[in-house]
Amino acid sequence: MNPSEWFTEQVPAAGTAFSLKIKQKLHEEQSEFQFLEIYETETFGNLMVIDGCTMVSTRDNFFYHEMMTHPVLYTHPNPKRVWIIGGGDCGALKEVLKHDSIEQAIQIDIDERVTRLSEIYFPELCEANNDPRAELKFIDGIKWVKDAAPNSVDIIIVDSTDPIGPAEGLFSAQFYRDCFNCLSEDGMVVQQSESALLHLKLLGEMRDAMSSAGFSHLQTLFFPQCLYPSGWWSATIASKSALANFREQDANNKPFETVFYNADIHKAAFAQPEFVKKAFGL
Amino acid sequence: MNPSEWFTEQVPAAGTAFSLKIKQKLHEEQSEFQFLEIYETETFGNLMVIDGCTMVSTRDNFFYHEMMTHPVLYTHPNPKRVWIIGGGDCGALKEVLKHDSIEQAIQIDIDERVTRLSEIYFPELCEANNDPRAELKFIDGIKWVKDAAPNSVDIIIVDSTDPIGPAEGLFSAQFYRDCFNCLSEDGMVVQQSESALLHLKLLGEMRDAMSSAGFSHLQTLFFPQCLYPSGWWSATIASKSALANFREQDANNKPFETVFYNADIHKAAFAQPEFVKKAFGL
Repeated sequence: MNPSEWFTEQVPAAGTAFSLKIKQKLHEEQSEFQFLEIYETETFGNLMVIDGCTMVSTRDNFFYHEMMTHPVLYTHPNPKRVWIIGGGDCGALKEVLKHDSIEQAIQIDIDERVTRLSEIYFPELCEANNDPRAELKFIDGIKWVKDAAPNSVDIIIVDSTDPIGPAEGLFSAQFYRDCFNCLSEDGMVVQQSESALLHLKLLGEMRDAMSSAGFSHLQTLFFPQCLYPSGWWSATIASKSALANFREQDANNKPFETVFYNADIHKAAFAQPEFVKKAFGL
Repeated sequence: MNPSEWFTEQVPAAGTAFSLKIKQKLHEEQSEFQFLEIYETETFGNLMVIDGCTMVSTRDNFFYHEMMTHPVLYTHPNPKRVWIIGGGDCGALKEVLKHDSIEQAIQIDIDERVTRLSEIYFPELCEANNDPRAELKFIDGIKWVKDAAPNSVDIIIVDSTDPIGPAEGLFSAQFYRDCFNCLSEDGMVVQQSESALLHLKLLGEMRDAMSSAGFSHLQTLFFPQCLYPSGWWSATIASKSALANFREQDANNKPFETVFYNADIHKAAFAQPEFVKKAFGL
Protein backbone atom coordinates (compact mmCIF):
# COMPACT_ATOMS: atom_id res chain seq x y z
CA MET A 1 0.00 0.00 0.00
CA ASN A 2 1.69 3.17 -1.18
CA PRO A 3 1.11 5.74 1.61
CA SER A 4 0.99 8.58 -0.91
CA GLU A 5 -2.10 7.03 -2.53
CA TRP A 6 -4.14 6.46 0.61
CA PHE A 7 -5.41 8.43 3.56
CA THR A 8 -5.31 6.16 6.60
CA GLU A 9 -6.86 6.76 10.01
CA GLN A 10 -5.25 4.58 12.63
CA VAL A 11 -7.19 3.94 15.83
CA PRO A 12 -4.42 2.69 18.13
CA ALA A 13 -6.64 1.77 21.09
CA ALA A 14 -8.88 -0.30 18.82
CA GLY A 15 -6.02 -1.88 16.87
CA THR A 16 -7.78 -0.96 13.62
CA ALA A 17 -7.18 1.35 10.68
CA PHE A 18 -9.38 2.47 7.81
CA SER A 19 -8.08 3.84 4.52
CA LEU A 20 -9.55 5.60 1.52
CA LYS A 21 -7.75 5.78 -1.80
CA ILE A 22 -7.04 9.40 -2.66
CA LYS A 23 -6.57 11.27 -5.90
CA GLN A 24 -5.02 14.33 -4.27
CA LYS A 25 -4.85 16.46 -1.17
CA LEU A 26 -6.92 19.55 -1.87
CA HIS A 27 -6.11 21.60 1.23
CA GLU A 28 -4.54 21.61 4.66
CA GLU A 29 -4.27 24.18 7.41
CA GLN A 30 -3.72 24.53 11.11
CA SER A 31 -6.73 26.46 12.41
CA GLU A 32 -6.76 28.09 15.82
CA PHE A 33 -8.13 24.83 17.22
CA GLN A 34 -7.38 21.86 14.96
CA PHE A 35 -5.40 20.54 11.99
CA LEU A 36 -7.75 20.41 9.01
CA GLU A 37 -7.21 18.44 5.79
CA ILE A 38 -9.33 18.00 2.69
CA TYR A 39 -8.71 15.16 0.22
CA GLU A 40 -10.27 14.19 -3.06
CA THR A 41 -10.79 10.43 -2.85
CA GLU A 42 -11.15 7.88 -5.63
CA THR A 43 -14.62 6.65 -4.66
CA PHE A 44 -15.97 8.61 -1.66
CA GLY A 45 -15.94 12.13 -3.12
CA ASN A 46 -14.27 14.70 -0.90
CA LEU A 47 -13.05 13.85 2.59
CA MET A 48 -12.54 16.15 5.57
CA VAL A 49 -10.04 15.07 8.20
CA ILE A 50 -9.66 16.80 11.58
CA ASP A 51 -6.60 16.07 13.70
CA GLY A 52 -6.03 12.88 11.71
CA CYS A 53 -9.58 11.55 12.13
CA THR A 54 -11.97 11.13 9.21
CA MET A 55 -14.93 13.43 9.77
CA VAL A 56 -17.09 13.52 6.69
CA SER A 57 -17.08 12.30 3.09
CA THR A 58 -19.33 13.31 0.24
CA ARG A 59 -20.47 9.74 -0.30
CA ASP A 60 -21.43 8.40 3.08
CA ASN A 61 -22.15 11.38 5.36
CA PHE A 62 -25.89 10.84 4.87
CA PHE A 63 -25.92 7.99 7.38
CA TYR A 64 -24.56 10.12 10.18
CA HIS A 65 -26.32 13.39 9.43
CA GLU A 66 -29.73 11.79 8.94
CA MET A 67 -29.44 9.59 12.03
CA MET A 68 -28.21 12.41 14.27
CA THR A 69 -31.24 14.52 13.40
CA HIS A 70 -34.44 12.81 12.19
CA PRO A 71 -34.76 10.23 14.97
CA VAL A 72 -34.63 12.88 17.71
CA LEU A 73 -36.73 15.35 15.70
CA TYR A 74 -39.45 12.75 15.12
CA THR A 75 -39.32 11.72 18.77
CA HIS A 76 -39.76 15.20 20.23
CA PRO A 77 -43.48 16.10 20.20
CA ASN A 78 -43.08 19.54 18.61
CA PRO A 79 -39.52 20.72 18.00
CA LYS A 80 -39.23 24.42 17.21
CA ARG A 81 -35.82 25.50 18.51
CA VAL A 82 -32.71 23.41 17.84
CA TRP A 83 -29.08 24.01 18.70
CA ILE A 84 -26.29 22.10 17.02
CA ILE A 85 -23.12 22.08 19.12
CA GLY A 86 -20.23 21.36 16.77
CA GLY A 87 -21.48 20.25 13.36
CA GLY A 88 -19.40 22.85 11.54
CA ASP A 89 -19.73 20.98 8.24
CA CYS A 90 -23.40 22.11 8.31
CA GLY A 91 -24.76 18.67 7.32
CA ALA A 92 -26.83 18.29 10.50
CA LEU A 93 -28.16 21.84 10.12
CA LYS A 94 -29.36 21.04 6.61
CA GLU A 95 -31.26 17.96 7.83
CA VAL A 96 -32.80 19.84 10.80
CA LEU A 97 -34.15 22.56 8.52
CA LYS A 98 -36.02 19.99 6.43
CA HIS A 99 -38.55 19.90 9.31
CA ASP A 100 -41.31 22.48 8.85
CA SER A 101 -41.87 22.80 12.60
CA ILE A 102 -38.42 24.33 13.11
CA GLU A 103 -38.48 28.07 13.78
CA GLN A 104 -34.85 28.53 14.79
CA ALA A 105 -31.72 26.38 14.27
CA ILE A 106 -28.47 27.69 15.73
CA GLN A 107 -25.19 25.97 14.89
CA ILE A 108 -22.46 26.69 17.42
CA ASP A 109 -19.04 25.44 16.31
CA ILE A 110 -15.89 26.79 17.91
CA ASP A 111 -13.95 26.55 14.64
CA GLU A 112 -15.19 28.80 11.84
CA ARG A 113 -12.64 27.29 9.45
CA VAL A 114 -14.52 23.98 9.42
CA THR A 115 -17.58 25.74 8.03
CA ARG A 116 -15.62 27.85 5.56
CA LEU A 117 -13.94 24.74 4.17
CA SER A 118 -17.25 22.89 4.06
CA GLU A 119 -18.75 25.72 1.98
CA ILE A 120 -15.98 25.15 -0.57
CA TYR A 121 -15.57 21.37 -0.53
CA PHE A 122 -19.01 20.16 0.64
CA PRO A 123 -21.35 22.79 -0.84
CA GLU A 124 -24.27 20.32 -0.80
CA LEU A 125 -24.09 20.20 3.02
CA CYS A 126 -24.26 24.00 3.21
CA GLU A 127 -27.35 24.41 1.07
CA ALA A 128 -29.49 25.51 4.00
CA ASN A 129 -26.99 27.94 5.54
CA ASN A 130 -28.91 30.94 4.21
CA ASP A 131 -32.28 29.69 5.41
CA PRO A 132 -33.76 32.58 7.45
CA ARG A 133 -34.28 30.17 10.37
CA ALA A 134 -30.56 29.31 10.46
CA GLU A 135 -27.92 31.07 12.52
CA LEU A 136 -24.21 30.17 12.54
CA LYS A 137 -22.13 31.09 15.57
CA PHE A 138 -18.40 30.45 15.89
CA ILE A 139 -17.97 30.42 19.65
CA ASP A 140 -17.44 27.92 22.46
CA GLY A 141 -20.52 25.66 22.55
CA ILE A 142 -19.82 24.58 26.14
CA LYS A 143 -19.92 28.18 27.35
CA TRP A 144 -22.95 28.94 25.16
CA VAL A 145 -24.94 26.18 26.83
CA LYS A 146 -23.66 27.08 30.32
CA ASP A 147 -24.74 30.71 29.93
CA ALA A 148 -28.13 29.99 28.38
CA ALA A 149 -31.40 30.83 30.17
CA PRO A 150 -33.86 28.10 31.16
CA ASN A 151 -36.30 26.99 28.45
CA SER A 152 -34.15 28.38 25.64
CA VAL A 153 -34.23 25.37 23.32
CA ASP A 154 -36.14 22.17 22.53
CA ILE A 155 -33.38 19.93 21.14
CA ILE A 156 -29.60 20.10 21.49
CA ILE A 157 -27.68 18.06 18.92
CA VAL A 158 -24.08 17.46 19.99
CA ASP A 159 -22.31 16.74 16.70
CA SER A 160 -18.79 16.68 18.03
CA THR A 161 -15.44 15.09 17.35
CA ASP A 162 -14.20 12.31 19.64
CA PRO A 163 -13.92 12.99 23.39
CA ILE A 164 -10.32 14.12 23.18
CA GLY A 165 -9.13 17.60 22.27
CA PRO A 166 -11.61 20.47 21.98
CA ALA A 167 -14.65 18.16 22.33
CA GLU A 168 -13.65 16.57 25.65
CA GLY A 169 -15.88 18.88 27.71
CA LEU A 170 -18.90 17.88 25.60
CA PHE A 171 -18.90 14.43 27.21
CA SER A 172 -18.97 15.63 30.86
CA ALA A 173 -21.75 15.46 33.42
CA GLN A 174 -21.39 19.24 33.91
CA PHE A 175 -22.13 19.82 30.21
CA TYR A 176 -25.21 17.58 30.36
CA ARG A 177 -26.44 19.44 33.48
CA ASP A 178 -26.08 22.71 31.59
CA CYS A 179 -28.03 21.19 28.69
CA PHE A 180 -30.73 20.01 31.08
CA ASN A 181 -31.07 23.49 32.55
CA CYS A 182 -31.57 25.35 29.29
CA LEU A 183 -33.85 22.78 27.61
CA SER A 184 -37.62 23.14 27.60
CA GLU A 185 -39.74 20.82 29.73
CA ASP A 186 -39.89 18.06 27.09
CA GLY A 187 -36.42 18.86 25.77
CA MET A 188 -33.88 16.36 24.50
CA VAL A 189 -30.20 16.19 23.85
CA VAL A 190 -28.71 13.80 21.31
CA GLN A 191 -25.01 13.10 21.07
CA GLN A 192 -22.87 10.87 18.89
CA SER A 193 -21.78 8.06 21.21
CA GLU A 194 -19.05 6.20 19.30
CA SER A 195 -18.98 2.48 18.46
CA ALA A 196 -20.65 -0.05 20.76
CA LEU A 197 -18.18 -2.68 19.50
CA LEU A 198 -15.06 -0.63 20.24
CA HIS A 199 -16.09 1.92 22.88
CA LEU A 200 -18.74 0.25 25.05
CA LYS A 201 -17.19 1.58 28.26
CA LEU A 202 -17.29 5.15 26.97
CA LEU A 203 -20.89 4.70 25.89
CA GLY A 204 -21.77 3.48 29.36
CA GLU A 205 -20.00 6.40 31.04
CA MET A 206 -21.83 8.81 28.76
CA ARG A 207 -25.18 7.26 29.61
CA ASP A 208 -24.34 7.43 33.33
CA ALA A 209 -23.34 11.10 33.02
CA MET A 210 -26.60 11.90 31.23
CA SER A 211 -28.63 10.13 33.91
CA SER A 212 -26.78 11.85 36.72
CA ALA A 213 -27.52 15.19 35.05
CA GLY A 214 -31.24 14.54 35.56
CA PHE A 215 -32.39 13.13 32.23
CA SER A 216 -35.06 10.59 32.98
CA HIS A 217 -35.00 8.58 29.76
CA LEU A 218 -32.10 7.41 27.60
CA GLN A 219 -32.21 5.76 24.18
CA THR A 220 -29.15 4.68 22.23
CA LEU A 221 -29.62 4.21 18.51
CA PHE A 222 -27.33 2.42 16.06
CA PHE A 223 -26.49 3.01 12.41
CA PRO A 224 -23.85 2.17 9.81
CA GLN A 225 -21.08 4.71 9.24
CA CYS A 226 -18.42 3.31 6.93
CA LEU A 227 -15.86 6.04 7.67
CA TYR A 228 -15.89 5.71 11.45
CA PRO A 229 -14.06 3.03 13.42
CA SER A 230 -15.76 -0.39 13.13
CA GLY A 231 -18.23 1.02 10.55
CA TRP A 232 -20.99 0.88 13.16
CA TRP A 233 -21.80 4.04 15.06
CA SER A 234 -24.28 5.15 17.69
CA ALA A 235 -26.01 8.20 19.07
CA THR A 236 -27.69 8.57 22.44
CA ILE A 237 -30.83 10.61 23.09
CA ALA A 238 -31.43 11.88 26.63
CA SER A 239 -34.94 13.15 27.34
CA LYS A 240 -36.14 15.30 30.25
CA SER A 241 -39.60 13.77 29.94
CA ALA A 242 -40.03 10.01 29.91
CA LEU A 243 -43.09 10.35 27.72
CA ALA A 244 -41.29 10.89 24.43
CA ASN A 245 -42.82 8.74 21.71
CA PHE A 246 -41.95 8.27 18.05
CA ARG A 247 -44.22 10.39 15.81
CA GLU A 248 -44.46 7.51 13.36
CA GLN A 249 -47.22 8.93 11.21
CA ASP A 250 -45.32 12.17 10.70
CA ALA A 251 -42.18 10.24 9.76
CA ASN A 252 -44.16 8.10 7.33
CA ASN A 253 -45.47 11.28 5.69
CA LYS A 254 -42.21 13.23 5.83
CA PRO A 255 -42.36 15.95 3.16
CA PHE A 256 -38.66 15.69 2.28
CA GLU A 257 -36.17 13.28 0.75
CA THR A 258 -33.68 11.19 2.68
CA VAL A 259 -31.13 8.61 1.54
CA PHE A 260 -31.13 6.26 4.55
CA TYR A 261 -33.76 7.36 7.08
CA ASN A 262 -37.42 6.40 7.00
CA ALA A 263 -39.96 5.34 9.62
CA ASP A 264 -38.89 1.67 9.51
CA ILE A 265 -35.22 2.59 9.84
CA HIS A 266 -36.15 4.85 12.77
CA LYS A 267 -37.71 1.99 14.71
CA ALA A 268 -34.94 -0.40 13.68
CA ALA A 269 -32.18 1.91 14.90
CA PHE A 270 -33.47 1.69 18.48
CA ALA A 271 -33.29 -2.13 18.66
CA GLN A 272 -30.75 -3.01 21.34
CA PRO A 273 -28.24 -5.79 20.63
CA GLU A 274 -28.08 -8.52 23.25
CA PHE A 275 -24.62 -7.52 24.53
CA VAL A 276 -25.70 -3.87 24.84
CA LYS A 277 -28.78 -4.85 26.85
CA LYS A 278 -26.59 -6.89 29.18
CA ALA A 279 -23.98 -4.16 29.54
CA PHE A 280 -26.54 -1.51 30.48
CA GLY A 281 -29.14 -3.64 32.24
CA LEU A 282 -31.84 -2.86 29.63
CA MET B 1 2.00 2.53 9.24
CA ASN B 2 4.60 -0.22 9.38
CA PRO B 3 3.29 -2.97 7.04
CA SER B 4 4.87 -5.67 9.18
CA GLU B 5 2.64 -4.68 12.11
CA TRP B 6 -0.70 -4.65 10.27
CA PHE B 7 -2.76 -6.96 8.14
CA THR B 8 -4.49 -4.85 5.48
CA GLU B 9 -7.27 -5.88 3.12
CA GLN B 10 -7.47 -3.55 0.16
CA VAL B 11 -10.74 -3.43 -1.78
CA PRO B 12 -9.59 -1.80 -5.02
CA ALA B 13 -13.03 -1.43 -6.60
CA ALA B 14 -14.35 0.28 -3.47
CA GLY B 15 -11.27 2.45 -2.96
CA THR B 16 -11.16 1.35 0.68
CA ALA B 17 -8.86 -0.66 2.92
CA PHE B 18 -9.27 -2.03 6.42
CA SER B 19 -6.39 -3.00 8.69
CA LEU B 20 -5.97 -4.88 11.94
CA LYS B 21 -2.87 -4.54 14.08
CA ILE B 22 -1.18 -7.93 14.35
CA LYS B 23 1.04 -9.53 16.93
CA GLN B 24 2.23 -12.32 14.63
CA LYS B 25 1.36 -14.52 11.71
CA LEU B 26 0.46 -17.92 13.12
CA HIS B 27 0.15 -19.91 9.92
CA GLU B 28 -0.03 -19.77 6.14
CA GLU B 29 -0.57 -22.37 3.47
CA GLN B 30 -1.71 -22.76 -0.10
CA SER B 31 -4.54 -25.29 0.02
CA GLU B 32 -5.83 -27.04 -3.07
CA PHE B 33 -8.25 -24.16 -3.54
CA GLN B 34 -7.13 -21.01 -1.75
CA PHE B 35 -4.31 -19.22 0.06
CA LEU B 36 -5.03 -19.40 3.79
CA GLU B 37 -3.46 -17.22 6.49
CA ILE B 38 -3.98 -17.04 10.24
CA TYR B 39 -2.88 -14.02 12.29
CA GLU B 40 -2.91 -13.23 15.96
CA THR B 41 -4.16 -9.64 16.18
CA GLU B 42 -3.69 -7.07 18.95
CA THR B 43 -7.39 -6.55 19.70
CA PHE B 44 -9.56 -8.87 17.56
CA GLY B 45 -8.21 -12.25 18.67
CA ASN B 46 -7.28 -14.57 15.82
CA LEU B 47 -7.95 -13.66 12.21
CA MET B 48 -8.43 -15.96 9.21
CA VAL B 49 -7.65 -14.54 5.79
CA ILE B 50 -8.53 -16.32 2.53
CA ASP B 51 -6.95 -15.13 -0.72
CA GLY B 52 -6.16 -11.80 0.96
CA CYS B 53 -9.70 -11.17 2.25
CA THR B 54 -10.52 -11.08 5.96
CA MET B 55 -12.93 -13.90 6.68
CA VAL B 56 -13.41 -14.27 10.41
CA SER B 57 -12.00 -12.90 13.65
CA THR B 58 -12.47 -14.20 17.18
CA ARG B 59 -13.88 -10.89 18.34
CA ASP B 60 -16.51 -9.89 15.82
CA ASN B 61 -17.62 -13.06 13.97
CA PHE B 62 -20.75 -13.20 16.13
CA PHE B 63 -22.45 -10.53 14.04
CA TYR B 64 -22.12 -12.49 10.83
CA HIS B 65 -22.71 -16.00 12.17
CA GLU B 66 -25.76 -15.03 14.22
CA MET B 67 -27.34 -12.97 11.44
CA MET B 68 -26.73 -15.61 8.75
CA THR B 69 -28.59 -18.21 10.81
CA HIS B 70 -31.13 -17.09 13.42
CA PRO B 71 -33.17 -14.72 11.19
CA VAL B 72 -33.81 -17.43 8.59
CA LEU B 73 -34.26 -20.16 11.21
CA TYR B 74 -36.86 -18.09 13.08
CA THR B 75 -38.59 -17.20 9.82
CA HIS B 76 -38.98 -20.78 8.56
CA PRO B 77 -42.05 -22.36 10.24
CA ASN B 78 -40.33 -25.58 11.32
CA PRO B 79 -36.74 -26.05 10.18
CA LYS B 80 -35.43 -29.59 10.57
CA ARG B 81 -32.86 -30.08 7.83
CA VAL B 82 -30.23 -27.41 7.12
CA TRP B 83 -27.34 -27.36 4.67
CA ILE B 84 -24.51 -24.88 4.98
CA ILE B 85 -22.70 -24.36 1.68
CA GLY B 86 -19.24 -23.01 2.49
CA GLY B 87 -19.01 -22.00 6.14
CA GLY B 88 -15.86 -24.07 6.70
CA ASP B 89 -15.01 -22.14 9.87
CA CYS B 90 -18.03 -23.95 11.43
CA GLY B 91 -19.42 -20.79 13.09
CA ALA B 92 -22.72 -20.95 11.22
CA LEU B 93 -23.04 -24.67 11.99
CA LYS B 94 -22.65 -23.95 15.70
CA GLU B 95 -25.44 -21.34 15.62
CA VAL B 96 -27.77 -23.59 13.59
CA LEU B 97 -27.40 -26.42 16.09
CA LYS B 98 -28.58 -24.15 18.91
CA HIS B 99 -32.10 -24.67 17.52
CA ASP B 100 -33.81 -27.70 19.05
CA SER B 101 -35.94 -28.28 15.95
CA ILE B 102 -32.87 -29.16 13.87
CA GLU B 103 -32.54 -32.88 13.12
CA GLN B 104 -29.75 -32.70 10.55
CA ALA B 105 -27.20 -29.99 9.70
CA ILE B 106 -24.78 -30.71 6.86
CA GLN B 107 -21.86 -28.39 6.21
CA ILE B 108 -20.50 -28.69 2.67
CA ASP B 109 -17.24 -26.77 2.17
CA ILE B 110 -14.97 -27.57 -0.74
CA ASP B 111 -11.84 -26.82 1.30
CA GLU B 112 -11.24 -29.14 4.26
CA ARG B 113 -8.21 -27.07 5.29
CA VAL B 114 -10.46 -24.17 6.34
CA THR B 115 -12.16 -26.41 8.87
CA ARG B 116 -8.94 -28.01 10.07
CA LEU B 117 -7.43 -24.58 10.70
CA SER B 118 -10.60 -23.39 12.38
CA GLU B 119 -10.44 -26.36 14.77
CA ILE B 120 -6.98 -25.15 15.82
CA TYR B 121 -7.35 -21.36 15.79
CA PHE B 122 -11.10 -20.88 16.36
CA PRO B 123 -11.98 -23.83 18.61
CA GLU B 124 -15.00 -21.96 20.01
CA LEU B 125 -16.59 -21.99 16.53
CA CYS B 126 -16.11 -25.75 16.26
CA GLU B 127 -17.76 -26.63 19.57
CA ALA B 128 -20.74 -28.24 17.85
CA ASN B 129 -18.81 -30.23 15.24
CA ASN B 130 -19.31 -33.45 17.16
CA ASP B 131 -23.03 -32.93 17.68
CA PRO B 132 -24.71 -36.13 16.41
CA ARG B 133 -26.93 -34.01 14.16
CA ALA B 134 -23.89 -32.46 12.41
CA GLU B 135 -22.20 -33.79 9.31
CA LEU B 136 -19.15 -32.21 7.66
CA LYS B 137 -18.53 -32.87 3.96
CA PHE B 138 -15.56 -31.55 2.03
CA ILE B 139 -16.89 -31.61 -1.51
CA ASP B 140 -18.17 -29.17 -4.13
CA GLY B 141 -21.32 -27.54 -2.73
CA ILE B 142 -22.55 -26.52 -6.18
CA LYS B 143 -22.51 -30.12 -7.38
CA TRP B 144 -24.01 -31.34 -4.09
CA VAL B 145 -27.02 -29.07 -4.54
CA LYS B 146 -27.33 -29.87 -8.26
CA ASP B 147 -27.41 -33.63 -7.62
CA ALA B 148 -29.80 -33.49 -4.66
CA ALA B 149 -33.28 -35.00 -4.82
CA PRO B 150 -36.40 -32.81 -4.44
CA ASN B 151 -37.51 -32.07 -0.87
CA SER B 152 -34.09 -32.89 0.60
CA VAL B 153 -33.66 -29.86 2.82
CA ASP B 154 -35.58 -27.05 4.55
CA ILE B 155 -32.97 -24.27 4.64
CA ILE B 156 -29.80 -23.75 2.60
CA ILE B 157 -27.34 -21.27 4.11
CA VAL B 158 -24.80 -20.06 1.57
CA ASP B 159 -21.91 -18.88 3.71
CA SER B 160 -19.44 -18.21 0.94
CA THR B 161 -16.52 -15.98 0.10
CA ASP B 162 -16.99 -13.13 -2.37
CA PRO B 163 -18.32 -13.91 -5.87
CA ILE B 164 -14.87 -14.34 -7.36
CA GLY B 165 -12.76 -17.50 -7.26
CA PRO B 166 -14.27 -20.76 -6.00
CA ALA B 167 -17.49 -19.06 -4.83
CA GLU B 168 -18.44 -17.48 -8.17
CA GLY B 169 -20.88 -20.24 -9.09
CA LEU B 170 -22.75 -19.74 -5.81
CA PHE B 171 -24.12 -16.42 -7.08
CA SER B 172 -25.62 -17.77 -10.34
CA ALA B 173 -29.25 -18.26 -11.36
CA GLN B 174 -28.45 -21.91 -12.13
CA PHE B 175 -27.31 -22.47 -8.54
CA TYR B 176 -30.48 -20.85 -7.18
CA ARG B 177 -32.61 -23.04 -9.48
CA ASP B 178 -30.82 -26.09 -8.11
CA CYS B 179 -31.49 -24.84 -4.57
CA PHE B 180 -35.15 -24.29 -5.42
CA ASN B 181 -35.46 -27.83 -6.74
CA CYS B 182 -34.07 -29.60 -3.68
CA LEU B 183 -35.77 -27.43 -1.03
CA SER B 184 -38.99 -28.51 0.66
CA GLU B 185 -42.23 -26.71 -0.15
CA ASP B 186 -41.70 -23.92 2.39
CA GLY B 187 -37.92 -23.99 1.94
CA MET B 188 -35.59 -21.00 2.06
CA VAL B 189 -32.12 -20.12 0.96
CA VAL B 190 -30.11 -17.37 2.65
CA GLN B 191 -26.91 -15.99 1.22
CA GLN B 192 -24.47 -13.30 2.29
CA SER B 193 -25.10 -10.45 -0.15
CA GLU B 194 -22.20 -8.04 0.40
CA SER B 195 -22.46 -4.33 1.30
CA ALA B 196 -25.43 -2.26 0.12
CA LEU B 197 -23.21 0.82 0.24
CA LEU B 198 -20.44 -0.63 -1.92
CA HIS B 199 -22.05 -3.44 -3.92
CA LEU B 200 -25.65 -2.39 -4.58
CA LYS B 201 -25.51 -3.55 -8.20
CA LEU B 202 -24.34 -7.01 -7.18
CA LEU B 203 -27.07 -7.20 -4.55
CA GLY B 204 -29.65 -6.31 -7.19
CA GLU B 205 -28.32 -8.93 -9.62
CA MET B 206 -28.43 -11.53 -6.87
CA ARG B 207 -32.03 -10.67 -6.03
CA ASP B 208 -32.95 -10.86 -9.74
CA ALA B 209 -31.25 -14.24 -10.09
CA MET B 210 -33.13 -15.57 -7.04
CA SER B 211 -36.46 -14.33 -8.43
CA SER B 212 -35.79 -15.81 -11.85
CA ALA B 213 -35.05 -19.15 -10.19
CA GLY B 214 -38.64 -19.22 -8.94
CA PHE B 215 -38.39 -17.91 -5.37
CA SER B 216 -41.55 -15.95 -4.70
CA HIS B 217 -40.42 -13.82 -1.78
CA LEU B 218 -37.12 -12.03 -1.12
CA GLN B 219 -35.98 -10.28 2.05
CA THR B 220 -32.62 -8.56 2.46
CA LEU B 221 -31.42 -8.02 6.00
CA PHE B 222 -28.66 -5.73 7.22
CA PHE B 223 -26.16 -5.97 10.06
CA PRO B 224 -22.83 -4.55 11.21
CA GLN B 225 -19.69 -6.49 10.36
CA CYS B 226 -16.59 -4.52 11.26
CA LEU B 227 -14.18 -6.74 9.32
CA TYR B 228 -15.98 -6.61 5.98
CA PRO B 229 -15.78 -3.71 3.52
CA SER B 230 -17.79 -0.66 4.71
CA GLY B 231 -18.49 -2.38 8.06
CA TRP B 232 -22.11 -2.90 7.01
CA TRP B 233 -23.08 -6.23 5.54
CA SER B 234 -26.23 -7.89 4.26
CA ALA B 235 -27.80 -11.28 3.69
CA THR B 236 -30.73 -12.12 1.43
CA ILE B 237 -33.37 -14.73 2.19
CA ALA B 238 -35.26 -16.23 -0.76
CA SER B 239 -38.41 -18.19 0.14
CA LYS B 240 -40.37 -20.64 -1.99
CA SER B 241 -43.54 -19.80 -0.08
CA ALA B 242 -44.59 -16.17 0.33
CA LEU B 243 -46.21 -17.01 3.65
CA ALA B 244 -43.05 -17.04 5.75
CA ASN B 245 -43.54 -15.09 8.96
CA PHE B 246 -41.22 -14.29 11.82
CA ARG B 247 -41.77 -16.68 14.75
CA GLU B 248 -41.40 -13.81 17.17
CA GLN B 249 -42.57 -15.60 20.28
CA ASP B 250 -40.07 -18.40 19.71
CA ALA B 251 -37.27 -15.89 19.21
CA ASN B 252 -38.28 -14.05 22.37
CA ASN B 253 -38.09 -17.33 24.27
CA LYS B 254 -34.96 -18.66 22.58
CA PRO B 255 -33.37 -21.22 24.89
CA PHE B 256 -29.79 -20.24 24.01
CA GLU B 257 -27.37 -17.35 24.35
CA THR B 258 -26.48 -14.92 21.61
CA VAL B 259 -24.21 -11.86 21.59
CA PHE B 260 -26.01 -9.69 19.01
CA TYR B 261 -29.25 -11.37 17.91
CA ASN B 262 -32.60 -11.10 19.67
CA ALA B 263 -36.19 -10.65 18.54
CA ASP B 264 -35.89 -6.85 18.32
CA ILE B 265 -32.67 -7.09 16.33
CA HIS B 266 -34.39 -9.61 14.04
CA LYS B 267 -37.17 -7.18 13.15
CA ALA B 268 -34.75 -4.26 12.90
CA ALA B 269 -32.47 -6.08 10.47
CA PHE B 270 -35.24 -6.27 7.89
CA ALA B 271 -35.88 -2.50 7.82
CA GLN B 272 -35.05 -1.28 4.32
CA PRO B 273 -33.07 1.96 3.93
CA GLU B 274 -34.64 4.55 1.65
CA PHE B 275 -32.01 4.14 -1.08
CA VAL B 276 -32.40 0.37 -1.05
CA LYS B 277 -36.18 0.66 -1.39
CA LYS B 278 -35.71 2.94 -4.37
CA ALA B 279 -33.08 0.75 -6.00
CA PHE B 280 -35.23 -2.38 -5.78
CA GLY B 281 -38.71 -0.84 -6.08
CA LEU B 282 -39.72 -2.00 -2.59
